[in-house]
Amino acid sequence: MTEFSVQNPAFVTYMIASAIMILKLMGQGWMTVFRMIKSDAGLLNPEDLLAGPANRNPRPEQLARSDYVDRSRRMQRNDLENIPAFLACGLIFVAVKPPLIWVEIFMYTFVATRLIHTLVYATGQRHEVRATFYTIGSLIVIAMAIWVLLALLR
Amino acid sequence: MTEFSVQNPAFVTYMIASAIMILKLMGQGWMTVFRMIKSDAGLLNPEDLLAGPANRNPRPEQLARSDYVDRSRRMQRNDLENIPAFLACGLIFVAVKPPLIWVEIFMYTFVATRLIHTLVYATGQRHEVRATFYTIGSLIVIAMAIWVLLALLR
Amino acid sequence: MTEFSVQNPAFVTYMIASAIMILKLMGQGWMTVFRMIKSDAGLLNPEDLLAGPANRNPRPEQLARSDYVDRSRRMQRNDLENIPAFLACGLIFVAVKPPLIWVEIFMYTFVATRLIHTLVYATGQRHEVRATFYTIGSLIVIAMAIWVLLALLR
Repeated sequence: MTEFSVQNPAFVTYMIASAIMILKLMGQGWMTVFRMIKSDAGLLNPEDLLAGPANRNPRPEQLARSDYVDRSRRMQRNDLENIPAFLACGLIFVAVKPPLIWVEIFMYTFVATRLIHTLVYATGQRHEVRATFYTIGSLIVIAMAIWVLLALLR
Repeated sequence: MTEFSVQNPAFVTYMIASAIMILKLMGQGWMTVFRMIKSDAGLLNPEDLLAGPANRNPRPEQLARSDYVDRSRRMQRNDLENIPAFLACGLIFVAVKPPLIWVEIFMYTFVATRLIHTLVYATGQRHEVRATFYTIGSLIVIAMAIWVLLALLR
Repeated sequence: MTEFSVQNPAFVTYMIASAIMILKLMGQGWMTVFRMIKSDAGLLNPEDLLAGPANRNPRPEQLARSDYVDRSRRMQRNDLENIPAFLACGLIFVAVKPPLIWVEIFMYTFVATRLIHTLVYATGQRHEVRATFYTIGSLIVIAMAIWVLLALLR
């Protein structure tokens, strides 16, 4: 018997949480694109200063650091530090057959904290608020990893 | 029945695409190493200025930003923003049993666009060309994630 | 029959190695937090200069680059360039049914080299030492990916 089947509600929970987190992660790349276009700034590569449809009015200062665009990159970096680990950890967590309620609590809470973290970061809320949601998400991944190790040791 | 078996052609497609993308991702790290050695520049850490086999002729300016080396790091960052999400998304996409033809179209197109993106980025082609291949790859991951959610909601 | 089951010793090896690597990755985020608090420096966001429990004595220079804090971020970046690829590659490696001994050699060696790499990087050992452990880990991921492709081609 495999745990990784659409007949297993724990795996379905994993698939839903993962799909939402993947959309969040990819969407962050598009927020960076949107902010680059809207502010006409925050470019990274010398060749991006070639005039063309993507840059009607090239200026050297477009390569300077723009906090508006860089904020979206910092958000994405924070996502990359957390979401891929969640995606891998959730899979092995399901494999050790935890109670469904814990799968749902851990995974949907992780999804919620990362979505709130995004809002908090995008709107520049204070450090303490941002850190709170980062912390909850991080501790959930850590808890799932420790759960896997303990389940296998038994 | 599990979808994650070498008897399932969709999973075999996933494994081939994933293995190629993993080689691409690891290879990008080696392009950075190659460029650091070739240009004798682009180091990141103060201790890298210690004289030794890896640095025959240490100079403080080796810690300055080198566009030649940094380009490879930017390419790797772009990979990290896309490939791990693809690896996780492809797995749950296979799990919801999509038609094999869509697995092949999505996955091999993603692989092709990321390989072309690498060539385009390495050779400094214009922004529009690079953005086109980024966009196709990103939309494929987004499409697979939405497909998973719709398949599970039905 | 599925390979992804707690009855399969190769998959159990994968789960143990993955859980340790996920804890390593998440722990690196906490090393950054620890170093930010300890040095009262290395902040990234303008809003982090608001006075509050997380910042008792805000000063603009807290946004300047701090090598002590940035080192932990560079370590995490290096992890992100290697660990997610390992997590995805290990899964498809197990799926092609390699001999258990190779699963154990590859995966536990990868875990060991990444843990040693962390120590070497945190204590600022010379480039050659750090590069050695990076290289072993990277070659293991590359070897697993090539093994998967060769196994599927046969």
